[in-house]
Amino acid sequence: MTDQLSLVFQALADPTRRAMLSRLRSGAATVGELAEPFAISRPAVSQHLKVLERAGLIERTAQAQWRSCTLRTEPLDEASEWVERHRGEWNERFDLLDEQLRRLKGTGDDRA
Amino acid sequence: MTDQLSLVFQALADPTRRAMLSRLRSGAATVGELAEPFAISRPAVSQHLKVLERAGLIERTAQAQWRSCTLRTEPLDEASEWVERHRGEWNERFDLLDEQLRRLKGTGDDRA
Repeated sequence: MTDQLSLVFQALADPTRRAMLSRLRSGAATVGELAEPFAISRPAVSQHLKVLERAGLIERTAQAQWRSCTLRTEPLDEASEWVERHRGEWNERFDLLDEQLRRLKGTGDDRA
Repeated sequence: MTDQLSLVFQALADPTRRAMLSRLRSGAATVGELAEPFAISRPAVSQHLKVLERAGLIERTAQAQWRSCTLRTEPLDEASEWVERHRGEWNERFDLLDEQLRRLKGTGDDRA
């Protein structure tokens, strides 16, 4: 289970990690800033960041003495594509069914 | 970690489970049909189906003596929404940056 898409979904499967990504939408943050809203230990924070980094969802940079994290959205493209493909085709099938039902009803009306 | 969205992402974080969902796009399937393409044990198949069912991504129905599985896409709506929100806002920020850069360039041209 080391394919990239699985790593991305795995990283998103935790509310703390999703909240960290949400925080990073408004710009880069230090590890301390990212940890602040959560009542979790520093090792737990590091573990979450490691999972996010492994999935390619964040990038850790060290500028001068500050280590900061930034969001990377490229991996979300593939995740989004997968989800959309599965939502989309299914909805299309329902649309097709709707259309067929409408057509059947239309035919009925014509005969009436 | 029992929120519904985490369960959905967790369920998607495995290539076998994603392949099973892909198979179900073309219609309901029995457990045997779903297991067929994979060289995994029957208990492993059951475990995967349990994870998918818990996330609300499949529904298991028993018609006569046949047990079949169908895809449910409602949980994917929330997952898709989350991913799109995070992709979208980030892309918007880049678009805004692009626009500002274009505007700055435009101003430069006006002065030339």
